[in-house]
Amino acid sequence: MSLKKINEIINLIRKNNKFLITSHVSPDGDNLGSVTALKLALEQMGKKAVMIIDDTLPSSFSFLPDIDKIISYESDMEVDFDLCFILDCSDFKRIARVEELLADKTIINIDHHGDNPSFGDYNLLGDVAATAELVYQLISEIEEIKMDKEIATAIATGLITDTGSFRYSNTTAQTHQIMADLLTYNVNTAKICKEVFDTYSYASLKLKGKVLENLKVDDSGKVAWIKVSQDLLKDTGSTLEDADGLVDYPRSLAGVEIGVLFKEVEDGTVRVSLRSNYYFSVDKIAHQFGGGGHAKAAGCTINDTLIKAEDAVISTIKKELSQVN
Amino acid sequence: MSLKKINEIINLIRKNNKFLITSHVSPDGDNLGSVTALKLALEQMGKKAVMIIDDTLPSSFSFLPDIDKIISYESDMEVDFDLCFILDCSDFKRIARVEELLADKTIINIDHHGDNPSFGDYNLLGDVAATAELVYQLISEIEEIKMDKEIATAIATGLITDTGSFRYSNTTAQTHQIMADLLTYNVNTAKICKEVFDTYSYASLKLKGKVLENLKVDDSGKVAWIKVSQDLLKDTGSTLEDADGLVDYPRSLAGVEIGVLFKEVEDGTVRVSLRSNYYFSVDKIAHQFGGGGHAKAAGCTINDTLIKAEDAVISTIKKELSQVN
Repeated sequence: MSLKKINEIINLIRKNNKFLITSHVSPDGDNLGSVTALKLALEQMGKKAVMIIDDTLPSSFSFLPDIDKIISYESDMEVDFDLCFILDCSDFKRIARVEELLADKTIINIDHHGDNPSFGDYNLLGDVAATAELVYQLISEIEEIKMDKEIATAIATGLITDTGSFRYSNTTAQTHQIMADLLTYNVNTAKICKEVFDTYSYASLKLKGKVLENLKVDDSGKVAWIKVSQDLLKDTGSTLEDADGLVDYPRSLAGVEIGVLFKEVEDGTVRVSLRSNYYFSVDKIAHQFGGGGHAKAAGCTINDTLIKAEDAVISTIKKELSQVN
Repeated sequence: MSLKKINEIINLIRKNNKFLITSHVSPDGDNLGSVTALKLALEQMGKKAVMIIDDTLPSSFSFLPDIDKIISYESDMEVDFDLCFILDCSDFKRIARVEELLADKTIINIDHHGDNPSFGDYNLLGDVAATAELVYQLISEIEEIKMDKEIATAIATGLITDTGSFRYSNTTAQTHQIMADLLTYNVNTAKICKEVFDTYSYASLKLKGKVLENLKVDDSGKVAWIKVSQDLLKDTGSTLEDADGLVDYPRSLAGVEIGVLFKEVEDGTVRVSLRSNYYFSVDKIAHQFGGGGHAKAAGCTINDTLIKAEDAVISTIKKELSQVN
């Protein structure tokens, strides 16, 4: 990420007045924090900015400033703007139907994913912990913008969520340096963390309980897994989304190298999430079942019953693991 | 915390050669990180430092540099030293039997607890997130000491554990500033966090499952509680220590103000942990049962059966809550 690129974008902002800001479906803390931070910053410069995402917003981010001003995309909506920002999207297609609004408008692509193919007319890319980190750097270079509690809260939310509160290995000295600056504007970190990490529905706590009670471990103690069936979702009144973070539990078992979550998304379709701790590449397993991902986080979908998916994946992992050890 | 006090302590270090470093029983990440960081720093200055704590050490901190060199106190042990550092103890008595070694030796008291009565001959106190933050400041003022990966890892462990990885409200801009500096020495934050926050025994995950399955909520949805009986510990093969962090779960239920954990520590003795989120002062409840604590975290011990303790505490909370709302 170069200062030249930042300056090109700042010139574009100065020359234009109306901006569309969009981002990916399945919104999370980094894209919502980045979108609202940029919107507030543009408004400080006297610009107009409309935020549109082709999805509904999770209630857990209701504390974000101006989050209620993000519009959910609707067919045939008309939006008047000069220039479009696409934030936190490694793949242009992740903006979904917002594409219909863009025609041949100039696109500024700001993203931190390593595989972003520079699809914008202008691209501000960087191998940093969160897109919010790039938005912070952009804003910091614009003299007219004064950092304030609202913008700082939005950027902090992006940093906190995409680093698991500074626990993941993507956290750098720069990430902490930026948080140090943001905290001077009275950001309520404890509140952000309570909302995004520490607030659950009754149904999701019940689901967690049932799932942990039935945690399975192989004889070697290196593979642990949990299962979420449609029946279990019904019994506990929970949803598939409630099961999302549960794969961290089998992985957290002392001595375990590979943690697996089997989710029966519907009858005959099982979504498998694979995680490893240190040395085993779980993407190899995912590939064998037509899926993909990274060495330490991968996934695949198996069209079979829960028990058959479990048997197939666990036996494949055991075989591969015996060759590694 | 003044530079004058730091300089007095630096002079003492320079004039002496053999140091005892001690800290509180029930060791945690902050006291173990502070003790090992200071020991490594003193050794860099060519000094001798022996670390003694009157307790066994939890295995979760085995990644700390030189943690294996911390000696567990033994009666009638003989230790040759000029000067004693007591770290992270708000109350002198928390060093337990290590007191027997001190006679009339000079004591340097370094601590971040607000209620520390300055019991040392020299006192380096500060209202900061962790004692490790004070050790960092002390070390930073000593020219002869070069920060390195080992010292940085020890200090980072103190900051990470005492702030819940920067989630608690004690986290300040300075805390992040220090972490930014520490991360330039290749501290493996992800590994520290994995060890201290994300590694559980099979028994403790089973206990968590059972406990969550039986989570209770009152009619208002504002009080939630869980119970750990001796039978449950036996059934799951878990220990009382495995139950320690569980009080965060009832508190994490959406809409809940007060979370309670009832632990049957032995037949007829129930330890009650109380937590609140925003406005209710749980120490009021604890006081009514002969306990104490702070507004958002308090506790008491009730000499009765689990079911009677549950009835008494929950009905008292409901009564108090009805007066607040």
